[in-house]
Amino acid sequence: MRLTQFFLPTLKEDPNEATVASHRLMLRAGMIKQITAGVYSYLPLGLRVFKKVENILREEMNAIGCNEFYLPVLAPNELWAQSGRLEEYGDLMFRVKNRELVLCPTHEEVFTSIAKPNLISYKDLPQMWYQIQNKFRNEERPRAGLLRGRQFTMKDAYSFDATWDGLDKSFDLQDQAYRNIFTRAGLKFFSVSAHSGAMGGSESVEFMVEASAGEDNVAVNDNGSYAANVEVAESKTDKTERKNTDLAYEKFHTPNIKSIDELAEFLKLADKSRLAKSRVFVKGGVEKDEYILVLVRGDDEVNEAKLERLLGAGLRPGHNEELAGITGAEAGSIGPIGLKTDGIRIIADLRLEGADELISGANENDYHIKNIDLKRDVPNIEYEDIRVVKDGEGSPDGEGNLRIVKAIEVGHIFKLGTKYAEAMDARYLDENGKENVIIMGSYGIGVERIAAAYIEQNYDDNGIIWEGELAPFDVTLICVNTNKEEVVSTCEELYKELESNGVEVLYDDRIDVRPGFKFADADLTGMPVHVIVGEKNLKDGKIEIKLRRSGERMLVEKGEVISKVKELLNK
Amino acid sequence: MRLTQFFLPTLKEDPNEATVASHRLMLRAGMIKQITAGVYSYLPLGLRVFKKVENILREEMNAIGCNEFYLPVLAPNELWAQSGRLEEYGDLMFRVKNRELVLCPTHEEVFTSIAKPNLISYKDLPQMWYQIQNKFRNEERPRAGLLRGRQFTMKDAYSFDATWDGLDKSFDLQDQAYRNIFTRAGLKFFSVSAHSGAMGGSESVEFMVEASAGEDNVAVNDNGSYAANVEVAESKTDKTERKNTDLAYEKFHTPNIKSIDELAEFLKLADKSRLAKSRVFVKGGVEKDEYILVLVRGDDEVNEAKLERLLGAGLRPGHNEELAGITGAEAGSIGPIGLKTDGIRIIADLRLEGADELISGANENDYHIKNIDLKRDVPNIEYEDIRVVKDGEGSPDGEGNLRIVKAIEVGHIFKLGTKYAEAMDARYLDENGKENVIIMGSYGIGVERIAAAYIEQNYDDNGIIWEGELAPFDVTLICVNTNKEEVVSTCEELYKELESNGVEVLYDDRIDVRPGFKFADADLTGMPVHVIVGEKNLKDGKIEIKLRRSGERMLVEKGEVISKVKELLNK
Repeated sequence: MRLTQFFLPTLKEDPNEATVASHRLMLRAGMIKQITAGVYSYLPLGLRVFKKVENILREEMNAIGCNEFYLPVLAPNELWAQSGRLEEYGDLMFRVKNRELVLCPTHEEVFTSIAKPNLISYKDLPQMWYQIQNKFRNEERPRAGLLRGRQFTMKDAYSFDATWDGLDKSFDLQDQAYRNIFTRAGLKFFSVSAHSGAMGGSESVEFMVEASAGEDNVAVNDNGSYAANVEVAESKTDKTERKNTDLAYEKFHTPNIKSIDELAEFLKLADKSRLAKSRVFVKGGVEKDEYILVLVRGDDEVNEAKLERLLGAGLRPGHNEELAGITGAEAGSIGPIGLKTDGIRIIADLRLEGADELISGANENDYHIKNIDLKRDVPNIEYEDIRVVKDGEGSPDGEGNLRIVKAIEVGHIFKLGTKYAEAMDARYLDENGKENVIIMGSYGIGVERIAAAYIEQNYDDNGIIWEGELAPFDVTLICVNTNKEEVVSTCEELYKELESNGVEVLYDDRIDVRPGFKFADADLTGMPVHVIVGEKNLKDGKIEIKLRRSGERMLVEKGEVISKVKELLNK
Repeated sequence: MRLTQFFLPTLKEDPNEATVASHRLMLRAGMIKQITAGVYSYLPLGLRVFKKVENILREEMNAIGCNEFYLPVLAPNELWAQSGRLEEYGDLMFRVKNRELVLCPTHEEVFTSIAKPNLISYKDLPQMWYQIQNKFRNEERPRAGLLRGRQFTMKDAYSFDATWDGLDKSFDLQDQAYRNIFTRAGLKFFSVSAHSGAMGGSESVEFMVEASAGEDNVAVNDNGSYAANVEVAESKTDKTERKNTDLAYEKFHTPNIKSIDELAEFLKLADKSRLAKSRVFVKGGVEKDEYILVLVRGDDEVNEAKLERLLGAGLRPGHNEELAGITGAEAGSIGPIGLKTDGIRIIADLRLEGADELISGANENDYHIKNIDLKRDVPNIEYEDIRVVKDGEGSPDGEGNLRIVKAIEVGHIFKLGTKYAEAMDARYLDENGKENVIIMGSYGIGVERIAAAYIEQNYDDNGIIWEGELAPFDVTLICVNTNKEEVVSTCEELYKELESNGVEVLYDDRIDVRPGFKFADADLTGMPVHVIVGEKNLKDGKIEIKLRRSGERMLVEKGEVISKVKELLNK
């Protein structure tokens, strides 16, 4: 492709609107243009990348026998009412004003409506169907360019099985295809399993890419054998050691001490492991609220997500007045001993199990208690994993230590089970003529997210660094001296030869652009290999080749450029 | 592709909802499925065809240097307000309820908004941009399946030029590309030019396909050198001959004669050429309405579209009371002589110019007048082409005769000029540093329409007849006796060999389906070549090949099947 025939509006300056690297670089490299909040036009260079992503998706889906469909953006309200999601989605789903239609944010309902009249016998199953299509979400605050927009592209696949074993097989096929896809896309990824639900086993797997622009906090170990969202992550940690000194507990004065840090300083303790941090949570009940006192070590934090999973939804920290009523003290002075109200449930983190010589609030402002032995002094205490894991702690599977990283979700596969088929009454007849509900899975990948995640992992100060299958072109061919006939004719020759050798070339044939700008644009748009044809080198019969990632430069005989480029590209 | 791994829900019966062939056959062949009025899911077989159409579009657009974009479905209301089309489109444009967004029915505004900040110098021009993307129209009455839906796919292209000559060049490039596209798609098409506007020359060309399902009535001659919508079509016809007998006109009694046909019968005239049909039209005015008496020959019809073009918009036939007031008679008895009101404008069709011995209403119920000489008796009469052309009349360019056919519009190319660039203030600096408005063209093709139009032109009682580039597969390979090992192994072999020879095969490997059903499905889905492997022929080392269009069958040696198939497909 000649640059003079290719619309590539690169920007010299960083645009103000962009806060994350992929957004900034996609705008600067002329790949996308915002038309309104969270809605983008894809310019020719961006589209080439997204098409390359789609190509990988299509090949990997076809390879596992998944059939390609194309479902409409529009669907009737009533279809979404059948599954109950018209209400569930609420304002997050775009609704059409002048017709009873929605803009689909996903396609479980539509696919199930196609399955229902067609997959009526066990002989019709299993089926795996997919599409690559626009999705729409009325995000309140679109952010980070293509990472969270109001219109985006997904490959969404759905499996239909007669048995739960069948679902497992379909799920595993998709799981493996997803791993192939991310590998081919050049992403350093990991997967996060969620264990839950009645069917046992892994019910959903999230595929994540480590990137500072990510919205998720994930704990991963070094070899990738463990990865979990910080909300659920566990770790290997020591418990607070039991000293068995059997000292009686004792109240002492701690004037104006409001926090664990202040307490540690007051006591001149570097180690906060024997300070017990107490918090009160409230769970709203139909008749009355339930209060829970929660204890973690002074050097740990309460994981409210874990707590909610333990105690059920609708949990909240207690207000000051509630704290005073239950404990008789303000937040900085509460603890498990001497609560004003009887029968409060007390839950401590596992690390505190059996700990003694602890210090905690005395439930009296400006006083704490030392030498607490939880076993002895708090008989009804329960122990659970309710802390937030920390960077550097041991992976729960024993494989190295955890890192806490920001990550982008690029894919998510689910065992849906019978939820949608049940709601929409999609049934099949089994071998015995008995009616059963179809068992479904759903499998989604964000097309633009893959490209954005790739950029988040592959850029430097000068721009994007493309390599492998997502590269929009393999080579940028730069004509340095457009006023020298030999330079131009050499470029023209190389352009044709490279293309005829299956190398995709972006040929910078612009006449009125200084070489410095061409080099800067080549770095910004980031093709893997740059072929630089200049007068000086050409006099010696040489042409310069530069590798985008390493910056390495080499001078190559004119006649060897094609083979060298192919070698560098593994073509 | 194995049929056992391909979702192909063919229907044995014609669906009630379908009135036109392409709709009926796309439903029956398992290509599409309606999800709500005018909105369809594309099933695997349908999608394959649409992808083949898109492939042609992409290749032909790329070949003329058109850059591929992908613009969003959503656009902010304000962008459409800039061009004035937010109001102009009205309810035909889908609006989002919970955000100030529209679903774009076309993309002039969005493309112009990208051009505006980027095409700022004559050096940036010309540009041609396109996309293949969903479009949305809130049609009141969707009809004919994919021919008029609420969601459809278009290739829309836009050109941006500095000069009117440049626009002509861009337009001609698109025009030629469109002809290539329709030819490659296997359509028998013709083009209709509309001459209008200040710039002279052809401002827009419609590409039409003759089909009974079409919404347009078009007059075409045999060699395609003339084609025009019936609303504007002209023809070569004789004028009514002047007899110069100079007989005085004379009123006569025509009891209960209300129409030209009754009058002809009453007068025992086979030839209605001397009966003048009179109609009164009303054009609403600010101060008062204007009345126009219109005359055509008894064997012609008034073309209201031509009349409106002549007299301006807002024309309507007169009511009975108005007729009585102006003429003194009911519709069946009005005429140009003896009107009750003075100064009525009288327009006759060109064929009546200079005619005499005419018979027309007397402006008195149950009376007509004979021997009218328009020249002598109606001095202020004007003559214009205001008739509807008829099948069999001479083409106005002298090339053969006209046929009046139903046609489907499959493409439309426009010289937009400065309309959108002006409204959105998209300007460039010319060589002299002077600001000018960018000159635009727009070029649209309906993806599904091309496929539907193809089917309208290529089907028989048994189903679709695919040939050439749109065929979803080249071959249906039918395994007749799935219980015979040799038949199955021969099929497997042929399947692999055909595929490895670049032939796309749909392999009917279904086990529990009777041969008759397989043959019927093969005819319905309509691949060009059917390879039928049956026990009986195979015993003689033979395999049957059937051509879908002609029904021709041939027995071929097993070893020669591949080469024969390739020969038949020109592969």
